[in-house]
Amino acid sequence: MPNRALSRKDHLERYKHVRRFSEEICAPLENEDYVVQTMPDVSPAKWHLAHTSWFFETFILQLALDGYFSPDPQYAYLYNSYYNALGDRHCRPRRGLLSRPTVSDTYAYRAYVDKHMETWICASEDDAFEPFASVLDLGIHHEQQHQELMVTDLKHVLGTNPLRPIYREITGKANTATLESQWISQSGGIYSVGHEGHEFSFDNEGPRHQVLLQPFSISDTLVTNGEFVNFMEASGYANAELWLSPGWSMVISEAWNAPLYWERIDGTWMNYTLGGWTPVDLNEPVCHVSYFEADAYARWAGMRLPTEFEWEVVAAQSPVRGRFADDMRFHPSSGADHPSLYGDVWQWTRSQYTGYPGYAPAPGALGEYNGKFMCNQFVLRGGSCASSASHIRPTYRNFFPPDARWQFTGIRLARDA
Amino acid sequence: MPNRALSRKDHLERYKHVRRFSEEICAPLENEDYVVQTMPDVSPAKWHLAHTSWFFETFILQLALDGYFSPDPQYAYLYNSYYNALGDRHCRPRRGLLSRPTVSDTYAYRAYVDKHMETWICASEDDAFEPFASVLDLGIHHEQQHQELMVTDLKHVLGTNPLRPIYREITGKANTATLESQWISQSGGIYSVGHEGHEFSFDNEGPRHQVLLQPFSISDTLVTNGEFVNFMEASGYANAELWLSPGWSMVISEAWNAPLYWERIDGTWMNYTLGGWTPVDLNEPVCHVSYFEADAYARWAGMRLPTEFEWEVVAAQSPVRGRFADDMRFHPSSGADHPSLYGDVWQWTRSQYTGYPGYAPAPGALGEYNGKFMCNQFVLRGGSCASSASHIRPTYRNFFPPDARWQFTGIRLARDA
Amino acid sequence: MPNRALSRKDHLERYKHVRRFSEEICAPLENEDYVVQTMPDVSPAKWHLAHTSWFFETFILQLALDGYFSPDPQYAYLYNSYYNALGDRHCRPRRGLLSRPTVSDTYAYRAYVDKHMETWICASEDDAFEPFASVLDLGIHHEQQHQELMVTDLKHVLGTNPLRPIYREITGKANTATLESQWISQSGGIYSVGHEGHEFSFDNEGPRHQVLLQPFSISDTLVTNGEFVNFMEASGYANAELWLSPGWSMVISEAWNAPLYWERIDGTWMNYTLGGWTPVDLNEPVCHVSYFEADAYARWAGMRLPTEFEWEVVAAQSPVRGRFADDMRFHPSSGADHPSLYGDVWQWTRSQYTGYPGYAPAPGALGEYNGKFMCNQFVLRGGSCASSASHIRPTYRNFFPPDARWQFTGIRLARDA
Amino acid sequence: MPNRALSRKDHLERYKHVRRFSEEICAPLENEDYVVQTMPDVSPAKWHLAHTSWFFETFILQLALDGYFSPDPQYAYLYNSYYNALGDRHCRPRRGLLSRPTVSDTYAYRAYVDKHMETWICASEDDAFEPFASVLDLGIHHEQQHQELMVTDLKHVLGTNPLRPIYREITGKANTATLESQWISQSGGIYSVGHEGHEFSFDNEGPRHQVLLQPFSISDTLVTNGEFVNFMEASGYANAELWLSPGWSMVISEAWNAPLYWERIDGTWMNYTLGGWTPVDLNEPVCHVSYFEADAYARWAGMRLPTEFEWEVVAAQSPVRGRFADDMRFHPSSGADHPSLYGDVWQWTRSQYTGYPGYAPAPGALGEYNGKFMCNQFVLRGGSCASSASHIRPTYRNFFPPDARWQFTGIRLARDA
Repeated sequence: MPNRALSRKDHLERYKHVRRFSEEICAPLENEDYVVQTMPDVSPAKWHLAHTSWFFETFILQLALDGYFSPDPQYAYLYNSYYNALGDRHCRPRRGLLSRPTVSDTYAYRAYVDKHMETWICASEDDAFEPFASVLDLGIHHEQQHQELMVTDLKHVLGTNPLRPIYREITGKANTATLESQWISQSGGIYSVGHEGHEFSFDNEGPRHQVLLQPFSISDTLVTNGEFVNFMEASGYANAELWLSPGWSMVISEAWNAPLYWERIDGTWMNYTLGGWTPVDLNEPVCHVSYFEADAYARWAGMRLPTEFEWEVVAAQSPVRGRFADDMRFHPSSGADHPSLYGDVWQWTRSQYTGYPGYAPAPGALGEYNGKFMCNQFVLRGGSCASSASHIRPTYRNFFPPDARWQFTGIRLARDA
Repeated sequence: MPNRALSRKDHLERYKHVRRFSEEICAPLENEDYVVQTMPDVSPAKWHLAHTSWFFETFILQLALDGYFSPDPQYAYLYNSYYNALGDRHCRPRRGLLSRPTVSDTYAYRAYVDKHMETWICASEDDAFEPFASVLDLGIHHEQQHQELMVTDLKHVLGTNPLRPIYREITGKANTATLESQWISQSGGIYSVGHEGHEFSFDNEGPRHQVLLQPFSISDTLVTNGEFVNFMEASGYANAELWLSPGWSMVISEAWNAPLYWERIDGTWMNYTLGGWTPVDLNEPVCHVSYFEADAYARWAGMRLPTEFEWEVVAAQSPVRGRFADDMRFHPSSGADHPSLYGDVWQWTRSQYTGYPGYAPAPGALGEYNGKFMCNQFVLRGGSCASSASHIRPTYRNFFPPDARWQFTGIRLARDA
Repeated sequence: MPNRALSRKDHLERYKHVRRFSEEICAPLENEDYVVQTMPDVSPAKWHLAHTSWFFETFILQLALDGYFSPDPQYAYLYNSYYNALGDRHCRPRRGLLSRPTVSDTYAYRAYVDKHMETWICASEDDAFEPFASVLDLGIHHEQQHQELMVTDLKHVLGTNPLRPIYREITGKANTATLESQWISQSGGIYSVGHEGHEFSFDNEGPRHQVLLQPFSISDTLVTNGEFVNFMEASGYANAELWLSPGWSMVISEAWNAPLYWERIDGTWMNYTLGGWTPVDLNEPVCHVSYFEADAYARWAGMRLPTEFEWEVVAAQSPVRGRFADDMRFHPSSGADHPSLYGDVWQWTRSQYTGYPGYAPAPGALGEYNGKFMCNQFVLRGGSCASSASHIRPTYRNFFPPDARWQFTGIRLARDA
Repeated sequence: MPNRALSRKDHLERYKHVRRFSEEICAPLENEDYVVQTMPDVSPAKWHLAHTSWFFETFILQLALDGYFSPDPQYAYLYNSYYNALGDRHCRPRRGLLSRPTVSDTYAYRAYVDKHMETWICASEDDAFEPFASVLDLGIHHEQQHQELMVTDLKHVLGTNPLRPIYREITGKANTATLESQWISQSGGIYSVGHEGHEFSFDNEGPRHQVLLQPFSISDTLVTNGEFVNFMEASGYANAELWLSPGWSMVISEAWNAPLYWERIDGTWMNYTLGGWTPVDLNEPVCHVSYFEADAYARWAGMRLPTEFEWEVVAAQSPVRGRFADDMRFHPSSGADHPSLYGDVWQWTRSQYTGYPGYAPAPGALGEYNGKFMCNQFVLRGGSCASSASHIRPTYRNFFPPDARWQFTGIRLARDA
């Protein structure tokens, strides 16, 4: 029963805030930047803007607002991402082949949905509103997820362009102090993990349940670019023994020899950031590494990655604090001043993504949200510089296939006690 | 020695005319329409606009205009189409992955090149101008070729969009009269074919040489949609015996059952045109068929396609007259009033594309223009509704692989006498 | 320290037994059947026969038998399966492209290795033998694993041949009684799982460690063909809601509508077995289903698959008894008379394959045995009609990707208590 | 009406001779060598043996011999190569996935067909025999074509095996004398080309018709390995300007840097032949080059390839004499002693394969023999060391796609007079 305590005004404000933030992310863009899809995993920005609107339209307005109709009946086909229960949809890898609806059409669609959503939030009867209050909440968190994807997708669109255009200058000066790592030790035993209570969470965060952990330690810092360069210089990318078998196949077939967006130019490792080309900052957390690279690094370092529950048990002891998307910097920071388990980069855990004991997806289309992806993915924890702070919780489970590199993903080490 | 007789003013006018026409083609576009590449053969409109400018920059301005420099050194990489002699280039199937340079950057690049070209045309010394006069001519005809590609590529971009947007309403009313075909008979013997003289031609049109023809007849009309529907209804697409072996493989693998852009909706064959969806006009020439379809149709009809020389010998006897791109209708017309071998649709010939006796490409990068494609392509003749009238000659040889369908390509029948 | 108690004579007998069984599996084959590779996952029988010999040669004879040399220096290249530490190797999907070494060469190679192995087992000094005793054991279990693969690969080779040849008549009559399922209930709590002690086990079965289980029940029978037909008839293959997302993609792209080797002929479901075509026996355990199908079936049935630890805790309470490869029937049986958690078909668990707490692979090439595959695979338990009885233990962990269907894989259901 | 003059006994002898030769080609093989298919273009030897038998069965015995039935009704499915008119067939790239029918089954099938064919040839009534006499002839030439394919396919099977097995020692000593090339000059004019008369020919060799040639010269020798090494050492494979565009793509994607079967070992170019590894013989004709390589070589040499008619006009003036398959050497020879336009290696012409004026394939399945491949192939002339002498005529047209290299294909130069 999420958020019953919120007033309609609170709901409206939260809705408007999240909707506005999507558009702020796009503010530095040229019209053309909204259109391109550089790989199947990437969606064009205008698709994200429209899909998040379609979500509210489909799961709220069509059902809860009398007389609502979509501005174009084909939007249901174009903007359905993966919901089989909702019928046919446009093929994901072809999203970048559509010049229409234009950017301007897309903003018009957003405005149309917003106008109706705002009417519905402010003026609907309680018995029309209450059954959909939790869907409103879901829609808001859904849009926050797409905001992070929009940032990472735009980085891929701009970062694979030979011109390496700048999205926006990154402000704030780098922290040049080297941060000494400390191990946080945790005793073994039975712990409770997973979400419970009235605050919003995704279905895959529950049910809350007990797990048995062995004693372990987890680092209070993220692995840095400097540490990762050590791995590279120690031939980490050339030593099959360090790698999972499908990871080694990727190293060979994709010629991986550094994190994504790094390029060796005249003897210097350069890094494409949303602020443009910059020399690799050795004190920053390493970013844009796959699970395979995180796992190989940990093995090389004589450590291992934490399980998602090890991470959660420690993280639950501290407030959610860190570098998130809210300052729109969209780049991890040297972390001297804020040791925390949260923020900067998502942390690969060694846990493969599966349902908790007793987990069952909701019936119907909204049940396709999380459960059907519980296969061949690894759990990431902690949020990143592209996640909104209000989106992150100790129980939050992100997940990606082990070869994904275009998200802001990094490494935190653990070891047996 | 082409066009020596032209004054500088004439040159300037021709240059400006062709450059303007490229931009007129784009006038109805939204910004987003310039960006998309729907298949490897298609290039984004902004790429065409830039590449044609790069051509003048590379082959004239860089060599003939003192102190000229390109606005961006990376343009040489982005806008080189296929000239190996000019170094590395951006991979063709990835042209649609570039949001930058933007449309506005592209027009600025055009204006920059135009300004310098106009200076050079008007103000250069004769001995600086003359050696490049023929390159200027080539650049103009090169841009006309890209104008046709721009039209067909835009049709593909819009026509594969599920929204089927309209590029521009097609004006002029259809001719409803059915046209009776007549056979034009030609006696056998030795004929001269190929280009000679001072007018511009591409290198692949010469040397002029003799060929021996058997007596034959060629139709004075193009095969119509109505006639092609007869083929379809006679199970033409289901009868392997009518097809070349690789053509039949395409029928199976691509599920071809009608020309490109046709779709059966509620029992009616609809046709996507640049003017939008319209019922198939049975009196129009059939269009957007591959060589395989043209060949299968001819076999089914008990006829054959003409050779390129049969076509040329007959065509050379009449003026170049027909429906071309100049009226910007960009759609073939019912032909009752103008029997001619030219215009409306390119006509597949049964001649595989090869060099004429004595043909040798020019040395250097410009030599990569035609010769290196003389393999696995068929010759088309006659020009189309997307070709400029001034671009077409009796000796003009267009060529495409036998499975290409996105060009304005149709069928004219021939038979042994 | 495995098997120290065994005498050399015991070692020899076990070695000879397992080596002989590989050849007995091949006894019904034509020479040509040893050569073919019907998909990348399948290896030709002659490759299996040689690779298992190479294993003894490489990990024992080359190191422990003075003066040993391989009959052909290229065998190291041809018969290395996946050990990166041992240098280059012949590409797996190309194993079926080799006509040489012939079947006869392969048996000669086996005999050569056997002769030297037997010499070494019988006549080596204790301090030359003891350090390799555990490798000998590993080699024997390694060959048992390949025996199972040989059976399943041969089934694929013969079963995808349009002639559907018979490997060998399957004897023994089918049990026609329907078996009533019972639920075995297990209370929650902390259990120890994983291998310990002196008996042989693979490295991935340990370390033994504690896990916390919730109360659950597990079926004492396997899902039958009859039950699976119910799922099929209830449109199980047509209902996306039942499937994991990548599973649904397989259903669509591969047109899955029944287990592998089933074909609907004149209204009857027929089943290709190593004994030839036979109508589907509704009382037999369903076999040759992927994890995706097992998971979808369980969801449809309102149940779930067990975790590997749930399975192990229950299985550890009963002796290893069931239908195994030893009778060379190589087909699952109707199970009325022997409820057991073992045998007939491998059972997909919902556990993704990962290392136990504290797991570390051995250093060097032998360390590539299990750990490097801990990614994108699911654990199977219990052994099958193609596993040797002596190969199976309660702690034994088999693993395959979720789309694999050519192994003898089936379904056992579980549910929360 | 071919070969009416032949007696039944002559027919029988010719039939038996050609059938025997297929089996002689296979004499050195191990059973396993009959099974493997190393690329889609290659067929297993046992498939060739069966398919050529199926040809006689299908086009003669089933129609002309009362009461004949095939030993297995599935052979019609397995051994149909590409005849759409004869129904479904086994997919070509999967021919190497079939262990059954075995080699022994295949020889039994041949014997069965032979027994019935011999009965029919010897004992049928004239009015049962005569209508099929030309099909008998076609079947014999068809088998000769497959004999050549068997040799080249076996070379591919053995030559891509890392063990590089020897098919049979090549006897006869190499000619070490260097042969001086002479130009054969031919005046321009109208010539008749193509087949006419009662001797056997394939349908694509006619109708005989007139062509107009310009004066030209053609070399009386084939390009040698030594000359081709000059091209290689002059960076021929690194100079895009020499190559057709799709040829250059092959050079890059396939890393072509020498003819097929050549490998640089310790500074020496080695050549895999059916007699095993041997240093490249600089005096031998270069072999296993694609059209792309032949064309690039000719351009580099400042010459060109002949057209098929230039070749034919000259070749028709001399007897068919040269090194053919009859001595079973299956390797081109240094040519000092026998200048001739025939034999050793097929010669790429610059003529794309198309039908002669008036050409029409036969109706029905036999009409699928040649015509449907008239697309994207180049004509080769002259026969090779794997062609039977009785199979070759001045009018004979072989054809392959321009990237094919596994045939015995080489280069003869021409130039304008």
